[in-house]
Amino acid sequence: MNLKHITIIVAAIIIGLPSTAQTNQSVVVEDFKPSSVNQPDKQFPQVNSEGRVRVSILAPQANRVQLDIGAVKYDLKKDTGGIWIGESAPQDEGFHYYQINIDGASVPDPGSLYFYGASRWGSGIEIPAKDQDFYALKNVPHGQLRENQYFSKTTNSVRHVYIYTPPEYDKNPAKRYPVLYLQHGMGENETGWGNQGRANVIMDNLIAEGKAVPFIIVMENSSVKFPSGFRPGARPQGQGANTPDKGPRNPMGNFNFAAQFERILIDDLMPYVESNFRVIADQQHRAMAGLSMGGMQTRLITLSNLDKFSQIGIFSGGSISMEDVNSAPGFKEKVKLVFVSFGSRELENRRPGGPFGGDPKANTDALKEAGINSQFYVSPQTAHEWQSWRRSLHEFAILVFKN
Amino acid sequence: MNLKHITIIVAAIIIGLPSTAQTNQSVVVEDFKPSSVNQPDKQFPQVNSEGRVRVSILAPQANRVQLDIGAVKYDLKKDTGGIWIGESAPQDEGFHYYQINIDGASVPDPGSLYFYGASRWGSGIEIPAKDQDFYALKNVPHGQLRENQYFSKTTNSVRHVYIYTPPEYDKNPAKRYPVLYLQHGMGENETGWGNQGRANVIMDNLIAEGKAVPFIIVMENSSVKFPSGFRPGARPQGQGANTPDKGPRNPMGNFNFAAQFERILIDDLMPYVESNFRVIADQQHRAMAGLSMGGMQTRLITLSNLDKFSQIGIFSGGSISMEDVNSAPGFKEKVKLVFVSFGSRELENRRPGGPFGGDPKANTDALKEAGINSQFYVSPQTAHEWQSWRRSLHEFAILVFKN
Repeated sequence: MNLKHITIIVAAIIIGLPSTAQTNQSVVVEDFKPSSVNQPDKQFPQVNSEGRVRVSILAPQANRVQLDIGAVKYDLKKDTGGIWIGESAPQDEGFHYYQINIDGASVPDPGSLYFYGASRWGSGIEIPAKDQDFYALKNVPHGQLRENQYFSKTTNSVRHVYIYTPPEYDKNPAKRYPVLYLQHGMGENETGWGNQGRANVIMDNLIAEGKAVPFIIVMENSSVKFPSGFRPGARPQGQGANTPDKGPRNPMGNFNFAAQFERILIDDLMPYVESNFRVIADQQHRAMAGLSMGGMQTRLITLSNLDKFSQIGIFSGGSISMEDVNSAPGFKEKVKLVFVSFGSRELENRRPGGPFGGDPKANTDALKEAGINSQFYVSPQTAHEWQSWRRSLHEFAILVFKN
Repeated sequence: MNLKHITIIVAAIIIGLPSTAQTNQSVVVEDFKPSSVNQPDKQFPQVNSEGRVRVSILAPQANRVQLDIGAVKYDLKKDTGGIWIGESAPQDEGFHYYQINIDGASVPDPGSLYFYGASRWGSGIEIPAKDQDFYALKNVPHGQLRENQYFSKTTNSVRHVYIYTPPEYDKNPAKRYPVLYLQHGMGENETGWGNQGRANVIMDNLIAEGKAVPFIIVMENSSVKFPSGFRPGARPQGQGANTPDKGPRNPMGNFNFAAQFERILIDDLMPYVESNFRVIADQQHRAMAGLSMGGMQTRLITLSNLDKFSQIGIFSGGSISMEDVNSAPGFKEKVKLVFVSFGSRELENRRPGGPFGGDPKANTDALKEAGINSQFYVSPQTAHEWQSWRRSLHEFAILVFKN
């Protein structure tokens, strides 16, 4: 949500419109083009140079149709042919989830491609960004995004994992590579980093430019079942390792949200990857990173397993404090990179005592002063959304496995 | 569409209901279970032991909500909480596309996973089949489904291709494998064989049982732009090779629907595959197969390129006649397998002069009598749908690359 957006909501509240149903009253710039993540040959949804999203759907017998994006619902208008059309306020650059609401039914827009977020496959839109070149598909050597099945003893089931191999992987059958375990956010799954995140395209471009060491990326589903009524951040964040039955030390309260995935990752997934892919299977060449919930999981799992991970990336998911460092034996010797990032709007709206713990910039500076390779990145003009995380991966990938 | 289904339509016409809006009046067996291709944790859609599909959607302000499956629309009923619910007539075993219609808007069901067919990403349902074991995900060694990008000179763009590598591929870095180019149908794309077709699961299971030679499968998008007003089968099928500007010899009329993909396949895709995957790059170890439009493309492209393909699979897409054989120089020496298949309901409803040409069984028998390894397969109780093609791939994979 950007400032214009907030202004419109505030104005709506003042003039008495319900805050969940907006009709966009401003002048709209008429330079709309189909979104880059539309289904083939679909003309809608469209985006204009202001970042407004225009949708259109045939629903001749409907009473009310709305565009639901950025937690705001915008009423569409019906033309004589039964087609509803309308647009949102300007959105931030990058990727956003959205839905259409038809007479109270929340459904995907038939015009867009679908992405898994908010615990559903739903519509997505791409607002062109000034820096979109770093995740643009180009005629450079391409790696592969490989869909794999493997058996997990922890869950007693065949599980699904996407693995990115760099462009040169099959050309160098004797060479081994560092490996990054990369996690999505709450309500997302193992498809998020490839689809919304464009992780493989970002890596192909960085490797072609010689900016990143070629490495393998493993993307699994770290979603766990939350108890009903669970709200992230309902308790103040604690510090330290992910130890079962130590409620107050866990940022998610009594529910230990990282423990199940920690067992899958360490007992099942890492052995599978290490016996089926040419990774360098040591602590020095193993990284973990994640966004939001995946960042919190990264923090907890790496702090508990410093014998296994030397490189840590936390994107919009908290930070590591000196208290964490002091309670994790050998941290200074073992950890070669701590990377912490947020979208600028997240920092503007940050509440002390919120789900992401202490001041991330202050924590990062304290680690740096203690001689730890600690990096802080702020994504300009973005919120808790994928554009922040694409940029975070891009920055992290340049730094990782170079110490 | 099965017989019960047809009966209901006929009954509806007799008693004057519109044939596009059915209310299911029969007694429904109450043993519904969530479909196996639902989104995670979604309770609807459901399927019962008769093969009826029950959907449910919250749409409190809607006037009319329908389930649209098998070219029939079934009215749902609204309960007091604003939830609409209802079911279809029994469907054939296997996979079917469907949509929900809300006050005239055709949208995907928010409960199902989405599949690309009918030129859109839409809902799919899985009716449990008596033979579903052959495409069930099991704890056997798994191959990989690899998403690749490559540059096509023909289209001057980066294109997308899925490539299945068998389970042992990465364990035998010196071994080379036969390769099958496998095509989807009209309105589908390169994701069809992996998602709806379960091609990788079928292959993993066959290889684990020792029934198929391990081979690589290449799945690209062979959709071409059809001119407006185009109807497949509007002209009688001709014979012979795919030669530009020979309208009557092409089953699609004047429009040469295979020529563009032939260039992509032979000039761009095959060289990419042969320099990036360990295939045996000769005619003996190269197959092409496809379903419906993909089967017609297979027929035309292989007949024109017998120096490149020795194994041919045509699933619900026509057959090869002795006239074809006689007009393709060297056919008898070069072709090691011709496999032709249909769903049983397609043969029951077959019109002479339809889009798939002459009698496929008679054509197959004639080839066999001429000493060609020619196989005919009929999928029991299925129509022009994915269950026919899963079974066809299963049968074809057992036979291919063994001569």
